[in-house]
Amino acid sequence: MVIVMNPKATEKDIANVTETLKCLGLGVHISKGAHVTIIGVIGNKSILAGTPLELMPGVDKIVHIMESYKLASRTFKPEPSVIRVGDVSIGGKELAIIAGPCAVESEEQLLKIARAVKKSGAQFLRGGAYKPRTSPYAFQGLEEDGYKLLAQAREETGLLIVSEVISANSVEMALKYVDVVQIGARNMQNFQLLREVGRSGCPVVLKRGLAATIEEWINAAEYIMKEGNYNIILCERGIRTYETYTRNTLDISAVPVVKQISHLPIIVDPSHGTGKWSLVEPMAMAAIAAGADGLMIEVHHDPKCALSDGPQSITPENFDRLVQRISKLAPIVDRQYNLAH
Amino acid sequence: MVIVMNPKATEKDIANVTETLKCLGLGVHISKGAHVTIIGVIGNKSILAGTPLELMPGVDKIVHIMESYKLASRTFKPEPSVIRVGDVSIGGKELAIIAGPCAVESEEQLLKIARAVKKSGAQFLRGGAYKPRTSPYAFQGLEEDGYKLLAQAREETGLLIVSEVISANSVEMALKYVDVVQIGARNMQNFQLLREVGRSGCPVVLKRGLAATIEEWINAAEYIMKEGNYNIILCERGIRTYETYTRNTLDISAVPVVKQISHLPIIVDPSHGTGKWSLVEPMAMAAIAAGADGLMIEVHHDPKCALSDGPQSITPENFDRLVQRISKLAPIVDRQYNLAH
Amino acid sequence: MVIVMNPKATEKDIANVTETLKCLGLGVHISKGAHVTIIGVIGNKSILAGTPLELMPGVDKIVHIMESYKLASRTFKPEPSVIRVGDVSIGGKELAIIAGPCAVESEEQLLKIARAVKKSGAQFLRGGAYKPRTSPYAFQGLEEDGYKLLAQAREETGLLIVSEVISANSVEMALKYVDVVQIGARNMQNFQLLREVGRSGCPVVLKRGLAATIEEWINAAEYIMKEGNYNIILCERGIRTYETYTRNTLDISAVPVVKQISHLPIIVDPSHGTGKWSLVEPMAMAAIAAGADGLMIEVHHDPKCALSDGPQSITPENFDRLVQRISKLAPIVDRQYNLAH
Amino acid sequence: MVIVMNPKATEKDIANVTETLKCLGLGVHISKGAHVTIIGVIGNKSILAGTPLELMPGVDKIVHIMESYKLASRTFKPEPSVIRVGDVSIGGKELAIIAGPCAVESEEQLLKIARAVKKSGAQFLRGGAYKPRTSPYAFQGLEEDGYKLLAQAREETGLLIVSEVISANSVEMALKYVDVVQIGARNMQNFQLLREVGRSGCPVVLKRGLAATIEEWINAAEYIMKEGNYNIILCERGIRTYETYTRNTLDISAVPVVKQISHLPIIVDPSHGTGKWSLVEPMAMAAIAAGADGLMIEVHHDPKCALSDGPQSITPENFDRLVQRISKLAPIVDRQYNLAH
Repeated sequence: MVIVMNPKATEKDIANVTETLKCLGLGVHISKGAHVTIIGVIGNKSILAGTPLELMPGVDKIVHIMESYKLASRTFKPEPSVIRVGDVSIGGKELAIIAGPCAVESEEQLLKIARAVKKSGAQFLRGGAYKPRTSPYAFQGLEEDGYKLLAQAREETGLLIVSEVISANSVEMALKYVDVVQIGARNMQNFQLLREVGRSGCPVVLKRGLAATIEEWINAAEYIMKEGNYNIILCERGIRTYETYTRNTLDISAVPVVKQISHLPIIVDPSHGTGKWSLVEPMAMAAIAAGADGLMIEVHHDPKCALSDGPQSITPENFDRLVQRISKLAPIVDRQYNLAH
Repeated sequence: MVIVMNPKATEKDIANVTETLKCLGLGVHISKGAHVTIIGVIGNKSILAGTPLELMPGVDKIVHIMESYKLASRTFKPEPSVIRVGDVSIGGKELAIIAGPCAVESEEQLLKIARAVKKSGAQFLRGGAYKPRTSPYAFQGLEEDGYKLLAQAREETGLLIVSEVISANSVEMALKYVDVVQIGARNMQNFQLLREVGRSGCPVVLKRGLAATIEEWINAAEYIMKEGNYNIILCERGIRTYETYTRNTLDISAVPVVKQISHLPIIVDPSHGTGKWSLVEPMAMAAIAAGADGLMIEVHHDPKCALSDGPQSITPENFDRLVQRISKLAPIVDRQYNLAH
Repeated sequence: MVIVMNPKATEKDIANVTETLKCLGLGVHISKGAHVTIIGVIGNKSILAGTPLELMPGVDKIVHIMESYKLASRTFKPEPSVIRVGDVSIGGKELAIIAGPCAVESEEQLLKIARAVKKSGAQFLRGGAYKPRTSPYAFQGLEEDGYKLLAQAREETGLLIVSEVISANSVEMALKYVDVVQIGARNMQNFQLLREVGRSGCPVVLKRGLAATIEEWINAAEYIMKEGNYNIILCERGIRTYETYTRNTLDISAVPVVKQISHLPIIVDPSHGTGKWSLVEPMAMAAIAAGADGLMIEVHHDPKCALSDGPQSITPENFDRLVQRISKLAPIVDRQYNLAH
Repeated sequence: MVIVMNPKATEKDIANVTETLKCLGLGVHISKGAHVTIIGVIGNKSILAGTPLELMPGVDKIVHIMESYKLASRTFKPEPSVIRVGDVSIGGKELAIIAGPCAVESEEQLLKIARAVKKSGAQFLRGGAYKPRTSPYAFQGLEEDGYKLLAQAREETGLLIVSEVISANSVEMALKYVDVVQIGARNMQNFQLLREVGRSGCPVVLKRGLAATIEEWINAAEYIMKEGNYNIILCERGIRTYETYTRNTLDISAVPVVKQISHLPIIVDPSHGTGKWSLVEPMAMAAIAAGADGLMIEVHHDPKCALSDGPQSITPENFDRLVQRISKLAPIVDRQYNLAH
């Protein structure tokens, strides 16, 4: 941490700041420039969390040098993390593909899609039992019955199940049915939920918030890790920008950035990220080419009749084509994707 | 709702769409242009929520004509709503001022600030018992003890209490102590919390989400109103933009926009909205000049030692000056602010 | 400037950086922390402009401490600048109001509006002779004939003229007719134009770019000042955000921010800033309440027939009402507005 | 175009609007819904450009159905355009790679880099003779001497030359030296420059503005095409968002979007798009995987000493590696890249 003093700061102001820091047991380096003095702070800055040094007389601004997260940082753990779910790994050489409908609608719908994505080579089935929706008048999900249908689909197909949890007190119930819990974009900073999922120890897909910086997102992972759960898969799903042609702007550059600053695996959701089925395949290709560890894709056998997010769902036929292309792309980026799961 | 057909749509495509609509009991108006055909849809469109017409052959796009909310709309209720809390009204001629520390830290701190803001003329005391924070290593609040201290401050000063709730299952507990619950920016789309607060019937301050459009924000209010609770006060607190000089960009234009499209009262929080104490007073003046019904201001007797958001807190002396100026500004915009509460 | 070294930087890396700085004649302060070493740089950093220290081995990042502009900075000139145009001042106690149509359309139109805004108390007439438009099929302005009509309106009414210049080689021509040249949002970083206007010495209204940070905007002013022209009036006109209800998001907080970091006067354009005539008056009030030195308002006697930006123009009647309200607001913020110009 | 009437619009209001439209020779379709009436407008809407129907009594809003550009639209020309420069094509099966330093600094620097990128397989050399820079104190380019050095590098290496023009009156001069002119992000809406480049007929790389929507960008191309010049290559180079970790957010989804709505070729500049050399290679791979027709890459033999944008330049060694990887990726997306140019 560096404290930049105001050009008009007095010697007394500078002494005042350095005394405060020393009293707290911190080391201090003073550097006097032609115009301003800067003070480098050495030691455990977390004890400063409640001391707004910005407000001390003569202080102009505080510049943070180190990132605010630790456990999720690449500095803390230089080798990439590989998350195990059943007999599948995420973050290693093999890519991971999670596919399925936005919302679980019925047994027939879910099983039809599950069989199709299994056949094309997906390892995970996704499906929403709870659907957070902007308007209270839109379909909100089948709730626990949705989880039950997902568990049934696992029985039949062997696919691992990924499904969203939307409140801290439903985590325990969800874990009776699913293999991986998903924390949605709207809940990325629902800290009670993060802590509860942290305590559960289960694998988590943590989606990036709609307007979250990469640093805030990794801090959300840090909340989970602080409770002892390191099984986190980050998922880029588009950020809000001024561009309205796409539903969101899929930030593919988050993939190599996360790879550089964190050891956690990262996958990409091009369905929510674009909001248009015709953009899903090219953006899925882009994500893997940029180094993503996997994909989350919305698939519906009859997008016209989907109760949620139909316009961004692709058909099983298009999904099959997409997986074929991904499997050919994989070796170009030193990955592999085995179609025979 | 208007359906715009593709320039290449066939007669069969058009017939297909109109038949689908008629089967659902909706009326249809076809308008053939030189290049494209558009289809106007008449009747209750909510039955279309699960039918993504965008995906029918020949359909180019869907244009929504009506807003997606009802109860919160000015069309639904043309006269402005006035929310009563104790013997204070929000949304009428008298402005409302909510002031206090970001976080409740101790009995001494809270009472000191409460007495000061009461003396300057505030009607409400704010203070956070739960503090959602980006980093898990920052101060997270005193929780229920914080609510108790707020209730104690009400006893002593007569100020009404506003405090945040962060999960659906803590609403009941919070209501034992507070007069108005606040839903924070990060929870604006925590739909379980919205519904629970809706069922409680208590007055609510609903903050705008960090990257929420005005329409999404009013839809969040609609979730609460759908449960029968109409006592909602909207609070603009800044949106996320590319500008980094201020913590957020305070969207003052949201004030006259909300006044035009909704009947709900709206207040402004210039403390979170700017993140800098020196900008609080000019932006508070701007908010009232634009037509806001009140203000929420962070006040701390010793901002240097505040455990949360010190840099954006003003001192009781500056708050007193601000209230004086607001009381002079009020009659210019046909409002009033009585300093002797 | 502070150089933050990587946690893995070696002693040799650090020596390498400090030697490079010393060779360039710069002073160096080294501060070794528990995890990282930081190097403070002392002296004239402009000689480093072409040396990307970020790329030297072991360097993690560069943190700039001082702003990148000088002449426009409040540190450089602590007292506010007052710009004289004819016998009117901008930036002093008296507010400045610039009003008129978006585009000059005809003699009749312009004179009608000019007389009306003069009568209501405006000191300046605005009108576009060149209209930069997103689509090449939209009305592009009367060009030099437009300037001539503006000069004619000045003859008749005594109003001072503000009009946009859109290229470096038309500045000289424009100055034959207008009192203040305007640099539009799209040209804020047209550096040839900035330099040419700088050389001309004439008063300038410099609009903020659609996605410009406040720092970039002040740097654009610096380009003009570097050529010796200090007669600059900044004009906030809304920034691009994700919110689509308003045409832009008018950043009222830019007003107090600019007042704190620069000595240049700042006015606000609520017409472009919102894109809706019904929001112009409340946002004009907000701008002045926040401390703006004046307003730029689009007025058209027949907005329905305006060839450009009709929806954001107000009628002369509404303008008169707005000016009346501004004149009442002025003393509340220690300003004045004399209606009898 | 669809006109949505207000729920309170009277029969007279509706008649008033339809009469106006009919007088202008436009066809009208009225569709009365339960709440609102909508009016479809048929015919050539460009005659409405100066008639703000939004302001007629009873009108609520105008919804545009058709895009505002024509010549650049895929509807207008369904097959993709292939731009010929010398004996190279852009937009066909073969990918195009443009590489070189951000700024031309000296003969030695330019030739060194030119030889290196030629050897690795680039077809085009880029280099800035004019450098628009945020601060007036930063290096601004060698101007005409820079163009001369580029022409000299063409002589020696056979590479085609791409370089930026920054004002309408320098286009003619630039064309004495360069093969393709570039219009930079800051000038995307410098309409005089667009028209001048349009008249010249030369191939153009048109960069997306920093905060331009895809529609505005294609409208900028339309300005050039309207003058008869169809040789346009669009270049995505990152947009401004709230995320600060990267210099801009590279919008890879613009690639498939442009491919769907326009026939013009599109390339991607991952150097400006990210601002960090370590992100250039993964984002270049992503761009090609998403369907881009080529790349523009900043290469410098000594990024540490680059006078401009060193941190985002890659070395010739890294560029060679990147081209090798692109050539392997190309067949996966039905393209080719011949390393032996």
